[in-house]
Amino acid sequence: MATLGDSFKLVHCHCKSSIAPCRCFSGGRPRLLQQTATCQAQGDFTSTKYPDIKRDDRFARLTPDHVAFFKGLLGSGSAVIDGVTSDAAADDLESFNSDWMRKYRGHCQLVLKPGSTDEVSKILKYCNDNMLAVVPQGGNTGLVGGSVPVFDEIVINLSRMDQITEFDDVSGTLVAGAGCILEVADQFLAGKGYIFPLDLGAKGSCHIGGNLSTNAGGLRLLRYGSLHGSVLGIEAVLADGTIVDDLCKLRKNNTGYDLKQLFIGAEGTIGIITKVSIQCPQRSPAQNVAFFGLESFEQVQKAFRAAKGQLSEILSAFELMDEGSQALVREVTGNRRPLDGQYPFYCLVETSGSNADHDSEKLESFLEDVMEKGIVLGGTLAQDETQRRALWGWREGIPEVLGHFGGVYKYDVSIPIKQMYQMVEDTRARIDAAGLLGDTDEHPVRAVVGYGHMGDSNLHLNVSTRRFDERVEKVLEPFVYEWIAERQGSISAEHGLGLAKKKYIGYSRTPTMLGLMKQIKTLYDPNGILNPYKYI
Amino acid sequence: MATLGDSFKLVHCHCKSSIAPCRCFSGGRPRLLQQTATCQAQGDFTSTKYPDIKRDDRFARLTPDHVAFFKGLLGSGSAVIDGVTSDAAADDLESFNSDWMRKYRGHCQLVLKPGSTDEVSKILKYCNDNMLAVVPQGGNTGLVGGSVPVFDEIVINLSRMDQITEFDDVSGTLVAGAGCILEVADQFLAGKGYIFPLDLGAKGSCHIGGNLSTNAGGLRLLRYGSLHGSVLGIEAVLADGTIVDDLCKLRKNNTGYDLKQLFIGAEGTIGIITKVSIQCPQRSPAQNVAFFGLESFEQVQKAFRAAKGQLSEILSAFELMDEGSQALVREVTGNRRPLDGQYPFYCLVETSGSNADHDSEKLESFLEDVMEKGIVLGGTLAQDETQRRALWGWREGIPEVLGHFGGVYKYDVSIPIKQMYQMVEDTRARIDAAGLLGDTDEHPVRAVVGYGHMGDSNLHLNVSTRRFDERVEKVLEPFVYEWIAERQGSISAEHGLGLAKKKYIGYSRTPTMLGLMKQIKTLYDPNGILNPYKYI
Repeated sequence: MATLGDSFKLVHCHCKSSIAPCRCFSGGRPRLLQQTATCQAQGDFTSTKYPDIKRDDRFARLTPDHVAFFKGLLGSGSAVIDGVTSDAAADDLESFNSDWMRKYRGHCQLVLKPGSTDEVSKILKYCNDNMLAVVPQGGNTGLVGGSVPVFDEIVINLSRMDQITEFDDVSGTLVAGAGCILEVADQFLAGKGYIFPLDLGAKGSCHIGGNLSTNAGGLRLLRYGSLHGSVLGIEAVLADGTIVDDLCKLRKNNTGYDLKQLFIGAEGTIGIITKVSIQCPQRSPAQNVAFFGLESFEQVQKAFRAAKGQLSEILSAFELMDEGSQALVREVTGNRRPLDGQYPFYCLVETSGSNADHDSEKLESFLEDVMEKGIVLGGTLAQDETQRRALWGWREGIPEVLGHFGGVYKYDVSIPIKQMYQMVEDTRARIDAAGLLGDTDEHPVRAVVGYGHMGDSNLHLNVSTRRFDERVEKVLEPFVYEWIAERQGSISAEHGLGLAKKKYIGYSRTPTMLGLMKQIKTLYDPNGILNPYKYI
Repeated sequence: MATLGDSFKLVHCHCKSSIAPCRCFSGGRPRLLQQTATCQAQGDFTSTKYPDIKRDDRFARLTPDHVAFFKGLLGSGSAVIDGVTSDAAADDLESFNSDWMRKYRGHCQLVLKPGSTDEVSKILKYCNDNMLAVVPQGGNTGLVGGSVPVFDEIVINLSRMDQITEFDDVSGTLVAGAGCILEVADQFLAGKGYIFPLDLGAKGSCHIGGNLSTNAGGLRLLRYGSLHGSVLGIEAVLADGTIVDDLCKLRKNNTGYDLKQLFIGAEGTIGIITKVSIQCPQRSPAQNVAFFGLESFEQVQKAFRAAKGQLSEILSAFELMDEGSQALVREVTGNRRPLDGQYPFYCLVETSGSNADHDSEKLESFLEDVMEKGIVLGGTLAQDETQRRALWGWREGIPEVLGHFGGVYKYDVSIPIKQMYQMVEDTRARIDAAGLLGDTDEHPVRAVVGYGHMGDSNLHLNVSTRRFDERVEKVLEPFVYEWIAERQGSISAEHGLGLAKKKYIGYSRTPTMLGLMKQIKTLYDPNGILNPYKYI
């Protein structure tokens, strides 16, 4: 069986519509998408696509004097990419101005790559004193436009601050610079028998500082929990240059307000994280993957409950996929389905433990139990690493195939688990009732599918279309957001707000909560220079 | 073997000294200590013991008008205990004025027991408008004087807000009032196959709101992590009556600053937590306990590393005890030691898993391995629940026996794991060098011992004395705090700051961090009415 990653390459063009507001990393390794000539020719600047967003005139425009200051501070080598006093850097600037989906594109003319916390501090103090807006940038793998400028904000890229500075092999505490690439950190830990408590498709590019800033969720949350629990300390720099020295390396420390938590998920709007201290768990030598079919979402819930009970401490993933999503994977890849029959729902269960025999016994006994009770109708258990990867391909391949036939409306949401799939059914019914869904060409919508991290109550609702059609958008929004709000769900489970969801936050947060958040923003960044136009 | 809890009762009297600044709950079930007549006659008010702390004159004194307002709001029944307009309530007030150790005692004349968030909001708004200081109080089981008044602050006791309002048996999300007793919540969850992700000795009395407010650590942190990771949402009320509606029930929610985190561990100084939403893990049906002896702290570290590697996902406790602490347990209880020989160090390892056979096999194989390698010199494995309890008795009994022969200086600290026991050795050497340590009566110090949660790098350093002697205190402080500060440890691992450690926070936090914390306090409680005289 060919791996999905090799079997096809996708080319997206978002220049004509607001389709595909986000793309799920956790469901597939990101790859750089080729941009069509049409897109570039038309100029897909964020400022053009979102004409309602105006440049804040309180911010100064860059001058040669500003650039001279930064060159004096960082040297005139590669730490400063200067498009202000020279045109030579135009090409170099492009990759810092655009996100990897090429959905957002800014007009930044200056990129700074500090090599130390002290340099970050001096940069920010100068920017704050001179009203220069900045965008902190890690691996630039975000999905909501949070890591690229909208206008001429200076990009502060952390890639040079990538050192692993400390590791305690008894406690499992790792200390590293914010610019350290997640996969580099994880590979370092693998050599020590430990694992980074976070995994996501972009691991080869994303920075751990960016992971913290976006409170990344990913594939291991079910097992290792949220970063709010595993991060022990951070070092960060506030807008005025103040260094927040909270790089604690201890599991227990009850000495005052836990300020570091505010920076986790703040998307660089109240400070720039420069160092990270994190508790890393033991790496599990044994892994198993099972894939099975079920007849209803009711049974999926029962299977999840049984997996939690019987697999308990070794359960490391419980993923949900509906038949619609699997039919698309089959159609696009041509791969043979893992199960002979077709079922309305499929689940992928992964275990990670310290003893392969014990884990296999638990997983087999679980599968026997759920099949005997009629909860699961058919299933398969991977026998080796190749088969494990192949089964994961049916889950990880979904985001790739969804865009194969046109654009996709994608929603990354959290919903109380019992109502999770209802959202897909209600959305499908609504689009169908509007006459937009069908197998023939006159229907703009091909399929409404759902999949996601069942273990985290995190649904990816996807509407796969043949072409952009304004009627689809009108049927979807604000319906989807209202539906989520009524059930106290979250409009952003793991991707964050960035530019994409800033205007929708009211569906998940009350005006009181928003007011309290704005107080925090004002407290730490009174001039608003940090990542403007985004977040709340 | 008699359980430790039945074999003796301790009576402490702290009125003559500042000995025993704290007492470790996680090392033993708390029991109400009898107060001697002498203590009461001498009047052990906090204001007398700490004459440097002055009542803040900005705060109003309670008048009958104030009381009338609160009775109008809450009714004149048991929700208001009024010592302002009547002397009849004096006895009732005592238990709200004193902590369970009888170490701290306030002069409060009014206790309010709101029954709803709305009532808490109206109380606080009134107090804020009228400059009335308040102390939020849960189960009043704290160890640092955080939950009782110093002067005439109003006690707002949350005990009536104890309802479990919601439980999702698929996701394991529990929602309950802040006044819900931890053990009640845990028993409710046990009936559903789940467990509260926190356990501590005071579980029969402490409130989950208080657990969050103090960021309680306890016995399950090694396995289930910090409350910062498991708490999904809170509802809280700010000083001005604003209700912070952040009662999220979702595992993933990236929509703005995670403000709830500030309230976890804030000890009631920026708001009162009224409701809690928390992610509860699956309860493990199988438990095992092993107890073994080792020749050095170097070997303890090796054993811990091996336990993490081989027991991995089933490891639920790894506790450390030195020979000094075990000799005291033996001396006071008269119980037969679990091992035949004596060793410089002992460890207790607990596993919790879903399959008893698998877990026993893993634990036995681990023990064989560490004994074969000479890491562990002798060990025993509990065969049933009685033996498990007996082995735990040698760890949980330590705090009880320490005070048996006089007073105890107790320090609850976090230290990077490799240097953890060095603190005990350095302290012992220093006391010995000062001629204060010895077996005979002229030496005030009987023993300097160390024990604690090795898995969390959390040491309990204890100096057991025959009597109070000023020289001991001078040798200990600030030495102990300086020692911790030099190694970037924490002066409070799990007990919090309260009144006891407020003045020492500078040893664990920089002036910059303290300044940032004070900003937060001012932001949420500009009049300073919430739990004054304490924390930072």
